[in-house]
Amino acid sequence: MTTSATSPELDRLIQLLARLPGLGPRSARRAVLHLIQKREQLLVPLADALHTAAERITVCATCGNVDTADPCAICADPRRDPAIICVVEHVSDLWALERAQATRGRYHVLGGTLSPLDGIGPDDLHIAELVARAKDPAVTEVILAVNATVEGQTTAHYVTDMLHGLDVTVTRLAHGVPVGGELDYLDDGTLAAAIRSRTPF
Amino acid sequence: MTTSATSPELDRLIQLLARLPGLGPRSARRAVLHLIQKREQLLVPLADALHTAAERITVCATCGNVDTADPCAICADPRRDPAIICVVEHVSDLWALERAQATRGRYHVLGGTLSPLDGIGPDDLHIAELVARAKDPAVTEVILAVNATVEGQTTAHYVTDMLHGLDVTVTRLAHGVPVGGELDYLDDGTLAAAIRSRTPF
Repeated sequence: MTTSATSPELDRLIQLLARLPGLGPRSARRAVLHLIQKREQLLVPLADALHTAAERITVCATCGNVDTADPCAICADPRRDPAIICVVEHVSDLWALERAQATRGRYHVLGGTLSPLDGIGPDDLHIAELVARAKDPAVTEVILAVNATVEGQTTAHYVTDMLHGLDVTVTRLAHGVPVGGELDYLDDGTLAAAIRSRTPF
Repeated sequence: MTTSATSPELDRLIQLLARLPGLGPRSARRAVLHLIQKREQLLVPLADALHTAAERITVCATCGNVDTADPCAICADPRRDPAIICVVEHVSDLWALERAQATRGRYHVLGGTLSPLDGIGPDDLHIAELVARAKDPAVTEVILAVNATVEGQTTAHYVTDMLHGLDVTVTRLAHGVPVGGELDYLDDGTLAAAIRSRTPF
């Protein structure tokens, strides 16, 4: 898609923005015009923030989180429970659990799920690093907080096999009715799981 | 919305990206993770492109287009027809007309529409500059390429009044069936206008 009225600099900016998830050529053009109109409030700060991120953001060698420090703020936080490792697929899942303040343990980002069709095997994920961390005697529980998809569950089974024989309890997230959810709109599998895992009231 | 797992630098980047049109906090987080994963291909080039834009992009004092030069590439292009000024509301409209290669004339960006309820009067738009440009004897036609909305048409009427007495023909865009459009889905006003303005086949 050409934007012939625009200068090469703007064209390049539009093309780069259009490669972000959720933006296409049209919304990228809108975003660029918005940025130009708010040069001091948005364009300059955003350019600076991106430069800072490019210079300082690194991946935590322990858990795989992204942060300005390595080890990351979570791995370095002494108030975190060293007994629990919460295994997630992606950094976005880690952020979601942190927003929910769902666990006081530390994390381990696998970097994806096993997917033979896409050529993603165990060596492409950070499973060996997880096993090494789980061998620490301080670790007593590994929570598999992977997605409730076929790929996620396949990966969970594989990770469980790898952790077999270690002195850790492997747990997974509960299936059930989402908080605020209505039964009428839920699928059969979730309803059956919610009944199976019913708890005393 | 807190993103407590993220460093202050990432938090700030997410907040800035979330202020772009079409992005919210969730999609901004996705975009940031995408940027970090593609640091060399996307994050660094985008930061550089934004810096370049912040330094070099300026608004053309003649027509109101945004470009790295003032006068802009369109105003400075000698192949453009100096007899025609195409009046648009926003720079995005100018870009749309340029993509369609709809006119070989030059442009004039009003910067919005008259909107008394929002406190936008004639002095807030670049109408006086348009009248000054239209006084040039070389200019023979002013095309009002404003949106077919109430605000756009109100503005068009006001601009026409301002141009009254000058030696220019004021024209507006045709109303009718969009190319590729189906009659069954068109509103009554458009269909009536298309019949009224029917042309010999």
